[in-house]
Amino acid sequence: LIPAGTDKASKTMRIAVDAMGGDKGPPEVARGVIEAARGSQTHFLLVGDPAVLEPELARIRPGLANVELVPASQVIEMTAQPALAFKRMPDASVVVAARMVKEKKADAIVTIANTGAAMAASLLTWGRIKGIDRPAIAVPLPSLTGTVVLLDAGATVDCDPNNLFEFAIMGSVYAQNVVGVHKPRVGLISNGEEESKGNTLVKRTHALLKQPLTEDSPFEFIGNVEGRDIFRGHVDVAVCDGFVGNVVLKTGEGVAEMVLRLIKAELGRHAWMKPFVLPLMPALRRLRQRIDYAERGGAPLLGVNGICIIGHGRSDAYAVTNACRTAERAVQNNIVETSRQRVCEMPTPPPTI
Amino acid sequence: LIPAGTDKASKTMRIAVDAMGGDKGPPEVARGVIEAARGSQTHFLLVGDPAVLEPELARIRPGLANVELVPASQVIEMTAQPALAFKRMPDASVVVAARMVKEKKADAIVTIANTGAAMAASLLTWGRIKGIDRPAIAVPLPSLTGTVVLLDAGATVDCDPNNLFEFAIMGSVYAQNVVGVHKPRVGLISNGEEESKGNTLVKRTHALLKQPLTEDSPFEFIGNVEGRDIFRGHVDVAVCDGFVGNVVLKTGEGVAEMVLRLIKAELGRHAWMKPFVLPLMPALRRLRQRIDYAERGGAPLLGVNGICIIGHGRSDAYAVTNACRTAERAVQNNIVETSRQRVCEMPTPPPTI
Repeated sequence: LIPAGTDKASKTMRIAVDAMGGDKGPPEVARGVIEAARGSQTHFLLVGDPAVLEPELARIRPGLANVELVPASQVIEMTAQPALAFKRMPDASVVVAARMVKEKKADAIVTIANTGAAMAASLLTWGRIKGIDRPAIAVPLPSLTGTVVLLDAGATVDCDPNNLFEFAIMGSVYAQNVVGVHKPRVGLISNGEEESKGNTLVKRTHALLKQPLTEDSPFEFIGNVEGRDIFRGHVDVAVCDGFVGNVVLKTGEGVAEMVLRLIKAELGRHAWMKPFVLPLMPALRRLRQRIDYAERGGAPLLGVNGICIIGHGRSDAYAVTNACRTAERAVQNNIVETSRQRVCEMPTPPPTI
Repeated sequence: LIPAGTDKASKTMRIAVDAMGGDKGPPEVARGVIEAARGSQTHFLLVGDPAVLEPELARIRPGLANVELVPASQVIEMTAQPALAFKRMPDASVVVAARMVKEKKADAIVTIANTGAAMAASLLTWGRIKGIDRPAIAVPLPSLTGTVVLLDAGATVDCDPNNLFEFAIMGSVYAQNVVGVHKPRVGLISNGEEESKGNTLVKRTHALLKQPLTEDSPFEFIGNVEGRDIFRGHVDVAVCDGFVGNVVLKTGEGVAEMVLRLIKAELGRHAWMKPFVLPLMPALRRLRQRIDYAERGGAPLLGVNGICIIGHGRSDAYAVTNACRTAERAVQNNIVETSRQRVCEMPTPPPTI
């Protein structure tokens, strides 16, 4: 094995950012990247249409030598079929960005919004990490005490127990190296805490995860967790298949949105309330920010042989900056190499499952 | 077929309430039942330990002839294995209540908290509705515009497409006859709205549900819905397997709890806030009530050959009263017979699926 990271640490880090996505458009992405570049040693490669990006850079870049424009003439639309688009659009911004990593011109990519295109570009350009069967999207979510990493949030909808076992390893590597949890507590999402609870997939995965790990195991398996435990801060990594994870993520978004809207309705019901509510608005805005996971720095696509951080479609410049910082930490701590090693070290699951 | 309901409508309705469950204990259940009995024509049979219930009834019953105590000497604990407990405890309150329906001494049961025991007692005493393979728990949840019925919330964790198809029928019968929606919109919970999204189970179920229904179809299939659509009021019935449904329910609880706690923390951060927050407290309490589904009248166990309404463990007397009202509506509108007929009328799904 190549000793990880030693070489890269001495070189300048390079992050390729696909500038052509997001609800707010390329200029917003550019602003986020420029903010990330200020005071950073990292070299940022902004990949996209020069006609759109050049004016924005000219306007606010002066003096920033570490933001470079890389032209890409195509854009994969949100409605495109990702694998097909990947084949037909070799000059799409996300494809160009992924290729730069393959050609060792960049150390990671950051892309906003189009998860399918990001997955296709990463998987088809880099392949998977040896020993890992399926990729997973890990989303850092707010909890009562900090951050919980939920995976898979939608990369692999039909999973077997072995996939979920690998998600647990990759998720804990991420929690340890990027979120900064010393020994992550891993929970398996189920319909009850008891070991007897779960559908067939979860019961089999539980059996895999509870086998005795090595003494210096990188994580602690705390058993099944229910949907409500995810947000209570009892767990650092919550593992499930991509179907369930996506439903959890969207349900959480929906409920938070509903509660905030109902607060607004209740606190706007009578005119007399206004003078009481107004001074509290900054506190309510802080709350909204705190639970908005779009601002938490993007979600890594794990299991691919490279670093790809995917930002939420709603990302503003601030969220893009956070996604760039996440990419920096992921490169610094070499999560790809660490995941590869951890999977090698793990006891081989019984082949019959 | 026996013409449904005609006979029962002329008779006094009788509802057997298992008084021995719930976090707040039997006296709280008794108070809820007494409140339901006031001004109602229904006869309530309060099933449980006379030593516990008699004092409570003596204290507040005077004048209420329609609440009757039915002795039951055993209680199934929350930790018991339900099917085993059912066999070993023939005089458990929930078993006695279910048997009264079987013996035509009651028209429905209401029970608090122990979902497993309620399922075992209902299924093993009454059996399933002819044509329905698996039971489902339907939970009425708050949405931005009213109520959405989520099923299955945990009765059947491993489902096939045919089970979900039957859940759609039963859920729409419930939405129509108990919640009061003229023609319920049924959505299939998935990881994306497009027909191509979903795991294998959901894709196959989608194919079943989208086949042309009869002209007087009792529901409209609106396709896949994402987790966040559930709470936006776009759908009246949200269908999924019992594993996913349980995770959605608990996730929703967890997020709502987190948001409310964070509001409390933000609005209690500085002493100067207090005079502004205090007058708004009633509004914030209204909000909490509005999103607390425990108060929404209990969740029916559908697919069994009888009416069983299960209340949340946290139920207070008010929630018990609501669960009794739900049971009354379910009996009045004869949801068991209606579900049986609807399943008969549906086109038979292709046998290969």
